This record gives sequence, structure tokens and C-alpha cells, in this order.
Amino acid sequence: MAGTEVERLIGLLARLPGLGPRSARRAALHLLKKREALLQPLTAALADADAKVKTCQVCGNFDSVDPCTICSDASREATICVVEDVAGLWAMERTGLYKGRYHVLGGVLSALDGVGPDDLGLDRLLDRVGRGEGSEVILAIGATVDGQTTAHYISDRLAVTGAKVSGLAQGVPVGGELDFLDDGTIGAALRARRPLA
Amino acid sequence: MAGTEVERLIGLLARLPGLGPRSARRAALHLLKKREALLQPLTAALADADAKVKTCQVCGNFDSVDPCTICSDASREATICVVEDVAGLWAMERTGLYKGRYHVLGGVLSALDGVGPDDLGLDRLLDRVGRGEGSEVILAIGATVDGQTTAHYISDRLAVTGAKVSGLAQGVPVGGELDFLDDGTIGAALRARRPLA
Repeated sequence: MAGTEVERLIGLLARLPGLGPRSARRAALHLLKKREALLQPLTAALADADAKVKTCQVCGNFDSVDPCTICSDASREATICVVEDVAGLWAMERTGLYKGRYHVLGGVLSALDGVGPDDLGLDRLLDRVGRGEGSEVILAIGATVDGQTTAHYISDRLAVTGAKVSGLAQGVPVGGELDFLDDGTIGAALRARRPLA
Repeated sequence: MAGTEVERLIGLLARLPGLGPRSARRAALHLLKKREALLQPLTAALADADAKVKTCQVCGNFDSVDPCTICSDASREATICVVEDVAGLWAMERTGLYKGRYHVLGGVLSALDGVGPDDLGLDRLLDRVGRGEGSEVILAIGATVDGQTTAHYISDRLAVTGAKVSGLAQGVPVGGELDFLDDGTIGAALRARRPLA
């Protein structure tokens, strides 16, 4: 009904996370209406990202240089934060509180999805810790079953290095109301309660 | 933090309807992970759509040919359905019930947005009706204040042509539960009630 080019564009847009068939149609129309302001710049940005963005061979971050700007920044502290994917790295960077380096796992251990220890680049992580690149390893992995299994496994593997291993605190999110939180989170926050005075 | 190419891509993706900053980041990461399966085909599809998709000079539809496949289809009935934008045209086509032609307004009258009668291609519509391309004009415009103002205005302008002018029925959506409907819709459905036996 809308020409094969438009149908194909809609089909590909619908494969982006967060866009269903209806929003992909809206996005395609929006692009066709704003050719110079949006469609053409987006085409160029995609081609540019494809040509220039590489995976950092040290930490797994996406950047236009390899090693990435974080890995080659000598002022970064000797701490390695282990994140599940690049989105986690970006989230940590946004806090502005973390000044160390990263290791991007690219997933978590999952028997169901066939993800084993070899897929997470742990030898690379152990090498870096062994070379003294991280005297502390912070496991910033999601509090899911697979995530926590992965954290335990990495923590075990790191034991031989003598590095300090820590995990993010669990508790009530900032701005979170108790009534909307699940029991597990409230329980974790209660067990980890801290004195206020 | 993520390289200027990635930042730029995220910024452009965030301007698509339905994607905010967070989902634009997720989409960008997804694209960078699936380069051959998604990023490259999407780049090609965008370039292709930009190069080939035109606005039909007769009805305002998007298609790779001008006049569009609907306008050049001789088997289409002599009815013109007036829609606000191409999304409305697609929605009508998806029903499979409408076999006529279209006029895409490209907007609705809006003093606030500075959209006047000249912007909606109404002279083109009146010409077509005058030439007998549509003995009936169906106004399939959204039931918003601006939409209904536009429908009244078009209906007035069409009066001189002698064409039959109709509007979509208002009522309870198929599958809609009364409890979730606004009072206006229920009121309209009540006023337009029809005998069942």
C-alpha cells in the first residue's frame, strides 16, 4: 500500500527496541516528512557510526578509537567496574561519581541462552587485574538471577588475584516509595540498614 | 563518553516519535551490536526511501511513483476519502473495506500552528471533485476540536460541487468496554443509537 521502499523502512524500524509496528510507521512518516532535518542526517550518522565505531579490545566499550578514550585516559583510577553491557557503562559514567575503568561482559552467564564463561572475556579481565590495572573490582551487574550467578562466578575467579571485590549496594531507589517496591528490595534494604546517628 | 559518532546517532534517534533519550540509547546500542543484520540495512533503506519516495501530486500520498499507485489504479471507485495525513490513509487501506481514492490534507486548520485553508490543498480537492473524480467525499478526520473545525470548513467548501459529503460514524470502538470510554464517546454512541431488530 505504501510502496516497497516505505514498507522495508517500516519493517527495519520496527526491529529497534522500543518501537512496535505502529510506532515504526509513525517514525517512517516522520522521517519522510523531515528529509533534510532528520532522514538525511540520520542516514549519515548511521553510516558514520558503522564506519568509525569500534569495540575496545581492552574493556569492550564502543568508541571511535581502540583502546577507547576511557582505557587510554591515564588519569583514571586503578579500579575496574564490571558491567553487563555498554548501556551499563554509560549509566555509570552519567553518575559522574566513578573515576575508574571498565570491563564490559557483553552478557551474563545463562545456560538457557548458551552463554558460558568464555563468552564474557573473563581471561582478559583476570589478566588486567593481574597486571595491577585494578586493585578493586566493582561488580555492577543487575540483580537478576543470572546476573547474581555471574557476579558470584566472577568473584570466585577473582579470588586468586587478591583484588578487592565489591558489588553495588541493594536498597530503596532514590525517590522510590515503599508502597511501589517489591518485597525483595524492601527486604534487602532492611537487612542492609545503616545507623543514621 | 561514548564517542561523538554514537552521541550524534543517539541525538538523532531521540528525535523520532516514540523514542525518548533512554530508548534512543538502547536503539543505538542495538544497532551497533547488529551491524550487518540491522544497522547497514537500515542505512540503505533510509537512503533508498529518500531517493525514491515522492509525494503524489494528486492526493498527497507517499509512493515511489507519482501519481501514486492508488491514484493511477483505474479500478478505484469515484469516492475521495479526506485524511489528515498519510498515516490515516494507511489506516483506511488496512481495513480493506475502502476501495476509493484519497486526499491527504497534511494537517488540520489551526490558528495556533498557523495552518490555514491554503496549506491543505483544498483547491486541488475541489478541482478533482469538479472533474467528477469523487461523487462522494468521506471526511475521515480525527474527532479533535481542530479536526472537526476542518471537517466543517471542507464540507462548506464542497457544498458548491453538489458532491455527497459524509463523515465517519462516532461510537463505541470494536472491543471497547464502556467503563474505559470517555463520556463524549458514550454520548455520541447513544445519540447515534440504531435499532437492532
